[in-house]
Amino acid sequence: MHPFEIVGVIGKRRDPQVIPTLRQLIEVLRAHGRRIRLDELTLPGLELPADVERLPRHELVRCDLVIVVGGDGTLLSAARDLAPAGVPLLGINQGRVGFMVDVQPGEMQEALAAIFAGDYLREQRLLLQTRLIRDQGRGAARLAVNDVVIRNQAAIRMLEFETWLDGEFISQHRADGFIVASPTGSTAYALSGGGPVVHPGLDALTLVPICPHTLSDRPIVVSSRQTVRITLRGDPDTVAMYTCDGQTAETLRAGESFEVREADFRLTLVHPKNYSYFNILRNKLHWGRGPAAGGELRNNIK
Amino acid sequence: MHPFEIVGVIGKRRDPQVIPTLRQLIEVLRAHGRRIRLDELTLPGLELPADVERLPRHELVRCDLVIVVGGDGTLLSAARDLAPAGVPLLGINQGRVGFMVDVQPGEMQEALAAIFAGDYLREQRLLLQTRLIRDQGRGAARLAVNDVVIRNQAAIRMLEFETWLDGEFISQHRADGFIVASPTGSTAYALSGGGPVVHPGLDALTLVPICPHTLSDRPIVVSSRQTVRITLRGDPDTVAMYTCDGQTAETLRAGESFEVREADFRLTLVHPKNYSYFNILRNKLHWGRGPAAGGELRNNIK
Amino acid sequence: MHPFEIVGVIGKRRDPQVIPTLRQLIEVLRAHGRRIRLDELTLPGLELPADVERLPRHELVRCDLVIVVGGDGTLLSAARDLAPAGVPLLGINQGRVGFMVDVQPGEMQEALAAIFAGDYLREQRLLLQTRLIRDQGRGAARLAVNDVVIRNQAAIRMLEFETWLDGEFISQHRADGFIVASPTGSTAYALSGGGPVVHPGLDALTLVPICPHTLSDRPIVVSSRQTVRITLRGDPDTVAMYTCDGQTAETLRAGESFEVREADFRLTLVHPKNYSYFNILRNKLHWGRGPAAGGELRNNIK
Amino acid sequence: MHPFEIVGVIGKRRDPQVIPTLRQLIEVLRAHGRRIRLDELTLPGLELPADVERLPRHELVRCDLVIVVGGDGTLLSAARDLAPAGVPLLGINQGRVGFMVDVQPGEMQEALAAIFAGDYLREQRLLLQTRLIRDQGRGAARLAVNDVVIRNQAAIRMLEFETWLDGEFISQHRADGFIVASPTGSTAYALSGGGPVVHPGLDALTLVPICPHTLSDRPIVVSSRQTVRITLRGDPDTVAMYTCDGQTAETLRAGESFEVREADFRLTLVHPKNYSYFNILRNKLHWGRGPAAGGELRNNIK
Repeated sequence: MHPFEIVGVIGKRRDPQVIPTLRQLIEVLRAHGRRIRLDELTLPGLELPADVERLPRHELVRCDLVIVVGGDGTLLSAARDLAPAGVPLLGINQGRVGFMVDVQPGEMQEALAAIFAGDYLREQRLLLQTRLIRDQGRGAARLAVNDVVIRNQAAIRMLEFETWLDGEFISQHRADGFIVASPTGSTAYALSGGGPVVHPGLDALTLVPICPHTLSDRPIVVSSRQTVRITLRGDPDTVAMYTCDGQTAETLRAGESFEVREADFRLTLVHPKNYSYFNILRNKLHWGRGPAAGGELRNNIK
Repeated sequence: MHPFEIVGVIGKRRDPQVIPTLRQLIEVLRAHGRRIRLDELTLPGLELPADVERLPRHELVRCDLVIVVGGDGTLLSAARDLAPAGVPLLGINQGRVGFMVDVQPGEMQEALAAIFAGDYLREQRLLLQTRLIRDQGRGAARLAVNDVVIRNQAAIRMLEFETWLDGEFISQHRADGFIVASPTGSTAYALSGGGPVVHPGLDALTLVPICPHTLSDRPIVVSSRQTVRITLRGDPDTVAMYTCDGQTAETLRAGESFEVREADFRLTLVHPKNYSYFNILRNKLHWGRGPAAGGELRNNIK
Repeated sequence: MHPFEIVGVIGKRRDPQVIPTLRQLIEVLRAHGRRIRLDELTLPGLELPADVERLPRHELVRCDLVIVVGGDGTLLSAARDLAPAGVPLLGINQGRVGFMVDVQPGEMQEALAAIFAGDYLREQRLLLQTRLIRDQGRGAARLAVNDVVIRNQAAIRMLEFETWLDGEFISQHRADGFIVASPTGSTAYALSGGGPVVHPGLDALTLVPICPHTLSDRPIVVSSRQTVRITLRGDPDTVAMYTCDGQTAETLRAGESFEVREADFRLTLVHPKNYSYFNILRNKLHWGRGPAAGGELRNNIK
Repeated sequence: MHPFEIVGVIGKRRDPQVIPTLRQLIEVLRAHGRRIRLDELTLPGLELPADVERLPRHELVRCDLVIVVGGDGTLLSAARDLAPAGVPLLGINQGRVGFMVDVQPGEMQEALAAIFAGDYLREQRLLLQTRLIRDQGRGAARLAVNDVVIRNQAAIRMLEFETWLDGEFISQHRADGFIVASPTGSTAYALSGGGPVVHPGLDALTLVPICPHTLSDRPIVVSSRQTVRITLRGDPDTVAMYTCDGQTAETLRAGESFEVREADFRLTLVHPKNYSYFNILRNKLHWGRGPAAGGELRNNIK
């Protein structure tokens, strides 16, 4: 039996530039005899072969693999919808390699041939589960792939926070906001805020205060199996914006809190065999390209 | 039977200011009926009660507990000597609380009474194991509690490095040096170099380039179960200093490497029951002191 | 003739904690035979001696000196109103020394006696003049003491900017916002954003991108005699908040710009003779307190 | 009369790669009828046309222009030797554009034709003058183009410093070292240490502590007309390395100081008319390349 028999496809919304790649992808998938399910919000007017079925996003959970064509933002949204059902994702970028959409359109044909032949890497990424805590109790759990952020909305007010780790008080903070990032999100907003790169192999949350008032208020990395709680302090009229992956937003008021820890399930990414996390990092961060001659690996310690 | 029957004592070397605390400590230990072993390099001329035995450092490995009187530096050295034998350490500071020497002299009597009554916390800290790799093969393993550092010696030369994680190439770097820090060491030299605070509950190594040439060459946090390898590049006459906890030093030459990963054993610290990692951090980093009224813990997520 | 014959007084608004200091200040001023003008918005219901005249803020421009009782925020607002008329300001802090309100209430009596005896320091601080540039032309000039800031309002969007110095293109930037700070403002928001401390003796503007997308997008210090222009880029629906000293706000749209350069006049601060800029900095930033023994000044270079 | 009648040439030492550019440069200079003086340390064995005179470096002070072929390091050294005599410098880079060697070899012919026709920019850069202060008095003045640096030599010791500005105490610092940078040097070592970019149009010194122990010990920018003094503190056996532009080195001992202020003369750089400081910065720091369409300059404020 084939691996990845039923393949879902999600394209970046309202971006006609992905059409050629989508058409080519569909041809490749048909040539491999895959059953194809296209997200119904992807380019609604596009004419498709008869055997390509359009389905609402939530029905893509029954796919064996979902291929995302677009940028990291498109993949973030797909991941929040599909990771709870355990659907693996593969990302094809448009124009520029992303941290997670790592297959170039020009490599797509070869990459998919190898993947359908069973020759690929599976990588697990931890996801963030977060909840608001209001007077009435805890809100529904939400998912984030990159980060959960709380930030001031107006330009003019510094906020006050308290942070806790599994009930142990961490500190008070005065800042524009606070980022709780997964390892995947460590190279997104958290990096702009002064956080470190955290390898996805580490089960960690990174807490980054945004423009903190106190210069020693530095990023903190903790275990993702612990629960971080952040409480907004201040006058009764203090409000802040609470967002997941910068894509959903809700208002938090003084005295209210939110919690973040790792979700019970992970996101599975499918990569070609030559995938290297650090190779993507070198490319995205304009680091040097490769080892000097003679830099071959020697035996490890131990 | 008593816990901690045989208690070793190590004082900061050549610092007569620790004498009153040492004397008081010995009285407290005698009052609790402990058998006392004093490190023979601690204040050699000091007159002692007849039942206090002086022993060389390496014989303190047979103690049930070793109490260090001094600063974090004294504890670092004791830890490298005694952690391989699994001896737990307790730190009493002189004058100023340290990250690891967390008991104040004035609290010593009460703290030890509670500890000898079995009322204390045990905390495990991961240790770094490192080895030089030269043409002839791998050198002997060395231990570090805080960090393994490679740095230029002369003020005038930027060095070139290559870094690897379990054989996967990370990047090339041009910098004054490189720090590989344990979570314990994340609040030491690595913090000065721009690294994050890493909670000791996380099994992680932090890689911090020192004054890197490329501004996107940021600190990276990886799993301590993986092996970091750093190779010095450059002209044949390039040399650099390789140190453990800033206390031992050796020369590394171009083409040579060193590796770091977590050791097979951990350091056990004994703390009073009211110990809080973040409380010490708030104190040492001049953060805010405590939660606002009403900041009581609510239930955690999940 | 007395220096500072007519003395204005401005208190922090709606803060009853300043009342005792205000009362004491008025007594000291009367004892020195000064004519006193109280800002009419300062504690409106407060009973006053008959010879204290209440005046609207704009009529305080005829004072010889205006004393501000409160925090740095109160002084910022007074400075924008009174500096154009050249009125010198003296700041008395409430509870905690500020960067500009440097006289402690307990030192007030002695400090004012010396100042009225002509024994004081005058310090000039440059002010920022800024204008919006819309399709219709340039807006009215506004003043800022600390900084002119443009920032996103919603938590979820990175903005795009272009920056120019006297018509020479500096760069494109992707960031949460941008700070243009005076030397006085270098220790305020700009410091939280990663900017340097800029001594008030330097005629400089500091440009600080807030959470920039590119890690090499670092703070830039330029001459305050040059004009910095910042243009907001992006989709037509892009908006950002433009503020002076975090106290006034206006909306900027994609394609619109603002300019900043030093104003034609300066703010004059009056300080006691023992005033030291670095002493305040050491206090506010928790630096070390003083030189070691033997650190006496030797002759300067040249 | 021609401008720049007598032209000196200095090539990067011991680098045969500069030979083709040097040969081409000499041909261009001869075609323009210039009298050519070649630094005698530049490629000593190279055969030259008879009308090219070899001279020791110090005799190049009588040239009207000196052209440097190499990297920024070659220009730094030439500037320290020739700027006191007021000789203007032009830099031709090898392979990669530098901050100061801004003419590409391929543009050399056209650039020199324009320059010899009088069509060029002259730019003044401030230079640093520094002196050691020992028990015996002040040492001889030294020049630096980029920076004066004091740093520990061994990897294992943090140093203690005191800093002063025109005799006013700034602070105590514990750090690996200290950088005092000119605006030109702000994009060199000081940038790696966390300092800002300082525009060469600003008469400023930037003080950057290297890996400071205290996180609020941030870079400070002061006027270059003031004198910065830095004193090394510590035990009598404390030593540190004191360097100018990373190219000269001397040992400083505990209790000794050095001073830095701007020199009485400046370095004159000659650039092609299309020279732009920010263009070079965008190139070197991998910033965005140019303004968006419509980003044309509008009128400035005032």
